[in-house]
Amino acid sequence: MKPINVGLLGIGTVGGGTFSVLARNGEEIARRAGRPIQVSVVADRNLERTRRLTKDSCRVTDDAFAVVSDPDVDIVVELIGGDSVAKELVLQAIANGKHVVTANKALLAKHGNEIFAAAQKKGVMVAFEAAVAGGIPIIKALREGLTANRIEWIAGIINGTTNFILSEMRDKGLSFDVVLKEAQRLGYAEADPTFDVEGVDAAHKLSIMSAIAFGNSMSFDQAHIEGISQLDAADIRYAEQLGYRIKLLGITKRTSEGVELRVHPTLIPTRRLIANVEGAMNAVLVKGDAVGPTLYYGKGAGAEPTASAVIADLVDVTRMHTADPEHRVPHLAFQPDAMVDLPILPMADVITSYYLRLRVADRTGVLADVTRILADQEISIDAMIQREPAEGEEQTEIIMLTHQTRERNIDAAITRIASLDAVKGAIVRLRLEELL
Amino acid sequence: MKPINVGLLGIGTVGGGTFSVLARNGEEIARRAGRPIQVSVVADRNLERTRRLTKDSCRVTDDAFAVVSDPDVDIVVELIGGDSVAKELVLQAIANGKHVVTANKALLAKHGNEIFAAAQKKGVMVAFEAAVAGGIPIIKALREGLTANRIEWIAGIINGTTNFILSEMRDKGLSFDVVLKEAQRLGYAEADPTFDVEGVDAAHKLSIMSAIAFGNSMSFDQAHIEGISQLDAADIRYAEQLGYRIKLLGITKRTSEGVELRVHPTLIPTRRLIANVEGAMNAVLVKGDAVGPTLYYGKGAGAEPTASAVIADLVDVTRMHTADPEHRVPHLAFQPDAMVDLPILPMADVITSYYLRLRVADRTGVLADVTRILADQEISIDAMIQREPAEGEEQTEIIMLTHQTRERNIDAAITRIASLDAVKGAIVRLRLEELL
Repeated sequence: MKPINVGLLGIGTVGGGTFSVLARNGEEIARRAGRPIQVSVVADRNLERTRRLTKDSCRVTDDAFAVVSDPDVDIVVELIGGDSVAKELVLQAIANGKHVVTANKALLAKHGNEIFAAAQKKGVMVAFEAAVAGGIPIIKALREGLTANRIEWIAGIINGTTNFILSEMRDKGLSFDVVLKEAQRLGYAEADPTFDVEGVDAAHKLSIMSAIAFGNSMSFDQAHIEGISQLDAADIRYAEQLGYRIKLLGITKRTSEGVELRVHPTLIPTRRLIANVEGAMNAVLVKGDAVGPTLYYGKGAGAEPTASAVIADLVDVTRMHTADPEHRVPHLAFQPDAMVDLPILPMADVITSYYLRLRVADRTGVLADVTRILADQEISIDAMIQREPAEGEEQTEIIMLTHQTRERNIDAAITRIASLDAVKGAIVRLRLEELL
Repeated sequence: MKPINVGLLGIGTVGGGTFSVLARNGEEIARRAGRPIQVSVVADRNLERTRRLTKDSCRVTDDAFAVVSDPDVDIVVELIGGDSVAKELVLQAIANGKHVVTANKALLAKHGNEIFAAAQKKGVMVAFEAAVAGGIPIIKALREGLTANRIEWIAGIINGTTNFILSEMRDKGLSFDVVLKEAQRLGYAEADPTFDVEGVDAAHKLSIMSAIAFGNSMSFDQAHIEGISQLDAADIRYAEQLGYRIKLLGITKRTSEGVELRVHPTLIPTRRLIANVEGAMNAVLVKGDAVGPTLYYGKGAGAEPTASAVIADLVDVTRMHTADPEHRVPHLAFQPDAMVDLPILPMADVITSYYLRLRVADRTGVLADVTRILADQEISIDAMIQREPAEGEEQTEIIMLTHQTRERNIDAAITRIASLDAVKGAIVRLRLEELL
């Protein structure tokens, strides 16, 4: 059968991986797809590298706009990244009636609503398995595998850099700054790591999963985002003593009031499978009302793991590209006319449990004052450690886990506790999820 | 849009779950599928229970053959189980041009080749996500999510009963017989547990995954099957001391010589995520050449988890049922004309590592004799425990882990070791997989 022709935009890490996996496994992929999938043209600014990688097996150009207008191209694979030129290219490809496969989470999180509307109007597919959690087929699981369910929540370790850093901080008892340098040396963190360590990358991915899970429009601009750069190794240790592990989770949850959409360091019980996802690995835990909890685990980044997702999309599009649009899986899992506009909840309205660490003067009555304030806000305490002060030390630390409460209540309590004479310095507040 | 009409065969546990999840989440499912999915007729021998469960919302009958011939039925859902009447019904439904959704692993493992050929000829779909690992969308992951990959191997905990029993044996230090009775009391094991505890159920599921992974025809009749009924609690303890956990794994692996297809108790390193899958949960670890290892975890049985998979298939079939067959995902992942016939390897040719436990007379020279025999077969030792004999005891135990070797070599060595004067009783031999 006639091969399908792919125009590849960008042959960096993921583009290079896609090119080489297609070459290596092309025969087996064709046996699955029903026809060969071939890269017919590659656009990249670095023509010399592009020629070296493609070895005359296809055309090369430095003009990406020529590729999205090329009449011989059936599917455009956008692996340039960023959300300016990439957006123009994707919209132009759609306008030209091309199907698009992309790994660009920033683009979809910010401009997905516009892009999917354009694709819908033109009757083309925009596939994006590679945009979330690399090679793990989590988009497929959410959009197709769990269609029977009312999805209740999703909690994911969806940034390998931060998970690597947290694993190392715990294992070796080192500080964030020291481990970040090590991660940069090993290539697990970028020279400018802000995007990863401050949780922005995770929030992009979370926004995409949230839209698909709830049939809601993409709401990245309303996500609450906290990273791990302020996390103290002492809190990782105390959490362990209490039976918890700290992970940077992306959490989205449907409540009767709206949708929670938040990325922040989170205590989770050590006995949960997801608490044991170590190093640069990714995992997504999904709670559906019928299936219960399911978990998806694998490499969330890297050339070939991400290429695995790009090519899975290519096979899907190859199978479906001549079919009526009605036969295809909707871009955001729900039919375009069946999307809803659920409000994203402000963090003050989120209900969860909390870990608090207070530095206090070592004298009687302090604990009574603190617990009185918590009780006034109807916050009850689940567990507590009071560190024994060392010989001659006049201050000590109290660590508490609370039961569930609304974030505005804990914040009100913290303000009052911080104003107590006996309380010294800032109060550490981390969120805790049981994930049951 | 016009609803799609489902004929449900069997309204027991899974049928009842399917009926009630469709009722509860029908509106949300229609928003995904693009049209309502409604059960229009249910066939079950127990008419009274059927009427009670369906509450006049659809027709009921005790004649399943009438349903598969019913012109108003678009999709037949077969949840009767077994492989005699169910086979006739499925083949009849296909002959009548109906699409089929089934959870029947025994039927597909034994008669899948015939059923898929009939469906292919007639241009209908046979969907079977629910046949493997309950609500975990593992069939979709293998058939669609990982299409870029040359799949190297799959290792799965795909029987909840046995995983529950092994978890309890380890946690509580109890024997198989005691825990089995407890599992039966809790409803985790059938009154006749043979099918589960002897590994047959796991082998059915493994055969289906193996065919999909490698594009091979269904080869259940050649699977090697060992259960857990002979497993001694002592070996679970020794394995723990050595850093391993014992799980009943279904393993299928592509080698240059053929396909390994085997179910047996297996030692796996405790630090692997899959080693920490406890109780009745299921998990499948898949190694692809591009994506690396990915893991899928969730409930492998039960009314609603299995219904989740049945209904996901119903949504897929609903979307695709008027599309050209060429647009659909092939039944066994590879196009029918691109299937191969890889040989299934006899166990003697399988290469893996081993755990050995020997009861020996407590005297010098025994260990030298044993290691000499292993060396003669080119088997090297990775770790060893020699239990200190108690005061006055004349026998002791030696536990060894070997490096990889061919099964015929270890068996030859065991025969020679067993004939040594100093070796008392049977030698325990378990297989060990690193799963990397």
